[in-house]
Amino acid sequence: MGETAVFGAGEYEARCRRTQEAMAGEGLAAMLLTSEPDFQYFAGFFTRFWESPTRPWFLILPATGAPVAVIPGIGTPLMSRTWIEDIRSWDAPDYDDDGVSLLADTLRELTRPGDRLGVPMGRETSLRMPLADWERLCDLLPKRTRHDVSGVLREVQGQKSSAEIAAIRRTCQIAGRAFDRVPEILRPEVTLAELFRRFQTLLLEEGADWVRYLAGAAEQSGYADVISPAHHRPIVAGDVVMLDTGAVRDGYFCDYDRNWAIGTVTPQVQEAHQILFETTETAFDAARPGLRVCDLYHIMETKLSRHSPAPISGRLGHGLGIRLTEPPSLIAADTTELVPGMVLTLEPSLTMGSGKMLVHEENIVITEEGADWLSPRGPREIPVLEWAR
Amino acid sequence: MGETAVFGAGEYEARCRRTQEAMAGEGLAAMLLTSEPDFQYFAGFFTRFWESPTRPWFLILPATGAPVAVIPGIGTPLMSRTWIEDIRSWDAPDYDDDGVSLLADTLRELTRPGDRLGVPMGRETSLRMPLADWERLCDLLPKRTRHDVSGVLREVQGQKSSAEIAAIRRTCQIAGRAFDRVPEILRPEVTLAELFRRFQTLLLEEGADWVRYLAGAAEQSGYADVISPAHHRPIVAGDVVMLDTGAVRDGYFCDYDRNWAIGTVTPQVQEAHQILFETTETAFDAARPGLRVCDLYHIMETKLSRHSPAPISGRLGHGLGIRLTEPPSLIAADTTELVPGMVLTLEPSLTMGSGKMLVHEENIVITEEGADWLSPRGPREIPVLEWAR
Repeated sequence: MGETAVFGAGEYEARCRRTQEAMAGEGLAAMLLTSEPDFQYFAGFFTRFWESPTRPWFLILPATGAPVAVIPGIGTPLMSRTWIEDIRSWDAPDYDDDGVSLLADTLRELTRPGDRLGVPMGRETSLRMPLADWERLCDLLPKRTRHDVSGVLREVQGQKSSAEIAAIRRTCQIAGRAFDRVPEILRPEVTLAELFRRFQTLLLEEGADWVRYLAGAAEQSGYADVISPAHHRPIVAGDVVMLDTGAVRDGYFCDYDRNWAIGTVTPQVQEAHQILFETTETAFDAARPGLRVCDLYHIMETKLSRHSPAPISGRLGHGLGIRLTEPPSLIAADTTELVPGMVLTLEPSLTMGSGKMLVHEENIVITEEGADWLSPRGPREIPVLEWAR
Repeated sequence: MGETAVFGAGEYEARCRRTQEAMAGEGLAAMLLTSEPDFQYFAGFFTRFWESPTRPWFLILPATGAPVAVIPGIGTPLMSRTWIEDIRSWDAPDYDDDGVSLLADTLRELTRPGDRLGVPMGRETSLRMPLADWERLCDLLPKRTRHDVSGVLREVQGQKSSAEIAAIRRTCQIAGRAFDRVPEILRPEVTLAELFRRFQTLLLEEGADWVRYLAGAAEQSGYADVISPAHHRPIVAGDVVMLDTGAVRDGYFCDYDRNWAIGTVTPQVQEAHQILFETTETAFDAARPGLRVCDLYHIMETKLSRHSPAPISGRLGHGLGIRLTEPPSLIAADTTELVPGMVLTLEPSLTMGSGKMLVHEENIVITEEGADWLSPRGPREIPVLEWAR
């Protein structure tokens, strides 16, 4: 293992073994993976180079043994420093054959006619390769049937190891220290766009490797949505400011937010903040192995509905780890059972009578006994920043 | 158009019209798009929310008129502030039907049996939706034939408007100011991981919205690869330090690097740096409308080969804009003709006798007369940082 690996080879071997047990249950000869988080999870292959959409990358997990990498030559030095030993590469980009025949050859070697080949095809997945190349690959692999493995991956990756939980906790703590310092940067005349820049700087100063996700808002008495880019108006008294981050350290995300009121706060916003806090408190107290995700959703939904003029819509949390958002979704349709090692966000939102909304989010891990906070617990009362003039 | 739009509606209308002209040439009734850069390009829809892989997003460009958005409800408020008026949404995630039947209904409304439906299927593209949902969509849309539009998108998006070129130039200037300040942060005892954090902070301070990509290296007399994550060893005398960034402002990338030598520098590194500088100089002088990308490649390759102990491998540059890397690739197989408005990186690399490599990268735009630098021109001589003890 090279100097850049986050975990020892044992961690990756254990992940592969657990996955291979689930694969055996579904009679799979191999699994084909193409995405950044799957390369990170099984190979320990970390790079920001996924930002370039030019080259496809392939990782094959056979029924037994270590994964085989079929990758562009530019990735060979880095892949050679992971625990993966069987690395096959081509000089990409190749307009005539961008790894497809090399991949087909490798899959023919690792599987036999009649075998089932696993590919993530279900929700929250996508195939990171050109569709035409995928179709050509299928033509080059006659007599292998494709089988959706998104369920297998959800189950295996959803149950984090103690090393993974420690990594997520560390990222949450980094964000916690940055959130604590927000009063340093949320000053008179700052625009939301500038606040975004300064908050990213705080996250880096506190130890984030990379700020992959940042959202937020600053509007009078609540906000209209939570995914818009930052505006260029100075933040003013009466604004409710929200910052929500997915910072990354060693490949693991946090995902939680904090709210502040500037100068003054309406009773409606104060009350909404308390209700959201109490909703996360109630969910935290209820969360334990055996409870289903939909049960947790209903507990939160019941609490929120009592105070919401509008019906509750959208999910109230989700999984978290090597992706900003992972399965499960806290919705009525998700019957996943909570198990120890599952990392979740609790993310209740409330639309107030004014039509504006407020969102509060925390990160937890399911333990044998119940749940632990991964994000340093936010305050029940919305903090009011007094700006001296 | 809302406050968050980067360009006026006219810019997006013109993009759609140009694309629709190319679509008419291929007899297409509509085009289906699923990716972040395509949403940005045609709808002016900007958000960092693409970091969440949970929800699929669909944009349909009909043969005439404005695009139609079929999107998760969480995106409606933001999409309503773009120039897009026909917005259809569902409450995602929906485990039974995550937008697929709504998308099929919309496509049935916008196309007729026998029509050709465009989808990006070729190189440098991927379909950002679950494969199983794509197959279900095809079943729900009988009698429409699929047609690869990656060539159409390459041509249209490859020729940037003056507004786009100005945006890329601005991002390049932001990175230029950050690179100028590197001596402030590249100090004794700093590790490469810490340098990465500090450099991201400089980029934000100088005006980047977001540091989507950062690569670099710090090794004795050159480096072994250019995509590895940062190491945690203190940088020491004799190291060659490289930083390569894809910062973003208003959705447009820069992508170029700079090198520094610490304390001392070998004649081999000095010479390699000069050769790389001269290779970009030669390429810049040659670049003009009508020259083919492969010609530009051969000009660079010829120059480099004279000094390289190893054969030149990999590409020597690429397109740049709403993606860190876009078509074309500067390789022998790319016969694309240069046209005014094309933005390129010139990225020659040289493997020295030691086996270590050096990379130099600049960003240019093709003009009527030749080429313009978008990145502030780097130095011919590698700067040597003297660290006082």
